[in-house]
Amino acid sequence: MIAEIIAVGSEMLTPHRQDTNSLYLTAALNKLGVSVAFKTIVGDNFDHLSSAAAIAIRRADIIVFSGGLGPTEDDLTREAVAAALGLTLHRDPATLLALQQKFLTRRIAMPPNNQKQADVLDGAILLQNKTGSAPGQWLDTAIDGPQGQPHRKIIILLPGPPSELKALFDGECRPRLSAVLPPRHIATRLLRMALIPESTVDARTAPIYKKFTDVETTILAGSAEIQLHFFTTKPTQQAAQARVNELAELIEAEMGEDIFSNDGASLEEVVQLMLGLRDMTLSVAESCTGGLLAERLTAIPNISRNFIGGAVVYSDALKTKFAAVPEALLQQHGAISPEVARALADGIRLTTNSSIGIGVTGLAGPATPTTGPDAGKPVGLVYIGLSDGEDTQVKQLQLPGDRERIRFWASQHALEMLRRHLQ
Amino acid sequence: MIAEIIAVGSEMLTPHRQDTNSLYLTAALNKLGVSVAFKTIVGDNFDHLSSAAAIAIRRADIIVFSGGLGPTEDDLTREAVAAALGLTLHRDPATLLALQQKFLTRRIAMPPNNQKQADVLDGAILLQNKTGSAPGQWLDTAIDGPQGQPHRKIIILLPGPPSELKALFDGECRPRLSAVLPPRHIATRLLRMALIPESTVDARTAPIYKKFTDVETTILAGSAEIQLHFFTTKPTQQAAQARVNELAELIEAEMGEDIFSNDGASLEEVVQLMLGLRDMTLSVAESCTGGLLAERLTAIPNISRNFIGGAVVYSDALKTKFAAVPEALLQQHGAISPEVARALADGIRLTTNSSIGIGVTGLAGPATPTTGPDAGKPVGLVYIGLSDGEDTQVKQLQLPGDRERIRFWASQHALEMLRRHLQ
Repeated sequence: MIAEIIAVGSEMLTPHRQDTNSLYLTAALNKLGVSVAFKTIVGDNFDHLSSAAAIAIRRADIIVFSGGLGPTEDDLTREAVAAALGLTLHRDPATLLALQQKFLTRRIAMPPNNQKQADVLDGAILLQNKTGSAPGQWLDTAIDGPQGQPHRKIIILLPGPPSELKALFDGECRPRLSAVLPPRHIATRLLRMALIPESTVDARTAPIYKKFTDVETTILAGSAEIQLHFFTTKPTQQAAQARVNELAELIEAEMGEDIFSNDGASLEEVVQLMLGLRDMTLSVAESCTGGLLAERLTAIPNISRNFIGGAVVYSDALKTKFAAVPEALLQQHGAISPEVARALADGIRLTTNSSIGIGVTGLAGPATPTTGPDAGKPVGLVYIGLSDGEDTQVKQLQLPGDRERIRFWASQHALEMLRRHLQ
Repeated sequence: MIAEIIAVGSEMLTPHRQDTNSLYLTAALNKLGVSVAFKTIVGDNFDHLSSAAAIAIRRADIIVFSGGLGPTEDDLTREAVAAALGLTLHRDPATLLALQQKFLTRRIAMPPNNQKQADVLDGAILLQNKTGSAPGQWLDTAIDGPQGQPHRKIIILLPGPPSELKALFDGECRPRLSAVLPPRHIATRLLRMALIPESTVDARTAPIYKKFTDVETTILAGSAEIQLHFFTTKPTQQAAQARVNELAELIEAEMGEDIFSNDGASLEEVVQLMLGLRDMTLSVAESCTGGLLAERLTAIPNISRNFIGGAVVYSDALKTKFAAVPEALLQQHGAISPEVARALADGIRLTTNSSIGIGVTGLAGPATPTTGPDAGKPVGLVYIGLSDGEDTQVKQLQLPGDRERIRFWASQHALEMLRRHLQ
């Protein structure tokens, strides 16, 4: 069975808005064993929408519409699908009454246009929308194929607001689709790695995952991170889980410590967990990352047990004040130097009384300084210091890209350096 | 003239990847006076792709394909478009030679599959791709309509990687489309407001912008921000600009100081500009935002002239150490209190010797503390202090939503409070 998702709304044909419901719907359909073969985005235009509906009904088995179920003149999904199927709409009295009562409660007269939210495709089941006013619709029907043989078609109409769409799909459509589709037992695994080129991961893992022809492997390159997703279906849940686990273990043996997470946890969460297990505390002194490293860590709930805080030492004066970096060191080597990275890490650890201190200093750009002790140093040059009271390591990086990329990668290197140190 | 954009690639039919090229293409086509009526996303499947191409060629005047031009077996756009148009492909000798030379330079034998990157639709112009290997194609042709009358169709094949697609569209397609399409003079304006409900902005501005029926007004609600976009076309550039300016001025008169930017600048950039004009410096002491406020400010180039830095005072000890908050105050009122927000703002200003100090303290959640002086305070309670040496204001907020939303809105409130203070 293949599916088509049709997102309805002129705003999604502007440069400002994108259909995002289809990502959620695709994940949900995939879990039911249904692949999405087409996605169509169409505006609030009756002719365009009804022709897109007719095309989808010919080429897909399951067609999910999102949007266009509201009360305005622009909301045309009901009418267009009816036209595409050659069906009529009837006004459902119970839904009409419920709509009228909603307005009565608010003591407003219901505009006549709102009545059309009670219009139902002949043969369809109304899907009650608890969080919004437009109900969804489910139609399990058949159309004639080229030789007159019947083709089963499941047509689903869902409201556009993501929370309403999700609630209706989960509550009303998933159980109905499960009942119609053959049963499936699915298992997934996710391995995450930081700062490794995608081509390296693929070269090392392809010889392994290609042998698992029954497991779908997807490599995704994200922000300074590579993810390996495994997906399989088997006659039993146990068999499915065992199979993805088997592959994940072989990949873990190959990639070793490059894998920071084998259960989907983020790098920040892994670092938090490791600090917690070792009962250690962390503080940071950030220059070029300007608070990004602290921000990423504090995005995790309950990190306050292990993250004390830190300083955004943007000026030289603050490097001295908050992280005890000697003024002479700043003058001699410049703020962007291994010496200052080391002093920041040592200094913030001592000032804040933490187990580990991290210092980040670098040039995020856009311009290279022309005066002072850092004159001529290249954009993208970053030093990270890590101090644990016994030893202080310093890492030098030359990061490509723009300011945003340099700052993010610097924070990622700092987290990854900390993770490897704690391992 | 209406356009359809077809994004080709099975990865965009998974839950993990989305077509983003179409946003760029839509903006570029809109500027040329072309609206996008359909977007289709289709996988690397010959039958699906050729049927989607045939449908698009019937219903649109300009069809832009992105992706599927690489050398692998999965790259089928050339073949599928040829099939849809009933055209043949010929192998372009110059392109083939250029491909072979690329491999020669790298001293690798060219896999036979790569030859197909030199295949050209009969009648098409090859668009040289300077940043990648797959050239684009431009075909200006005509197909027969239902009554045999010719319909002009412009078919554009572009590579999928966004940087290659943009370079080829800008360099090769935009000038060709401009030559074909009637000339247009476009003007746009953008007004930005923070922390105001979309419904309020619409209620106050709709009576004005609805009178400008020749200007397209779009209200976009983003992250704690509302944007008003104006767009018009006129016979001359001057007339177009004058018209959007006229509307923008009326809206500015209505919304007054709620508008933080009338030239597209971000809130951070506006704050930077104002600090610069007044020759003032800023420092921040952040508890619940954990570095986010500093991170947002330091994302702006050259902010170091006006932003000294600050402290991420996650623990009470650091509130005392870096922002001189008296221990007794923390014990008496709790860290989440107007008294501590005030002390953080005053303290960080004095410690860092800046003109303005901002302190942020609050509960981002997920849980309410059950012990200590902050026990029972609700998630979302945030206090922001702003100290300028003469006066210290404190603002209390009760923010809805999850940790991420509370933290972002707290940082937005701090920036907006600073902007209004500087105004």
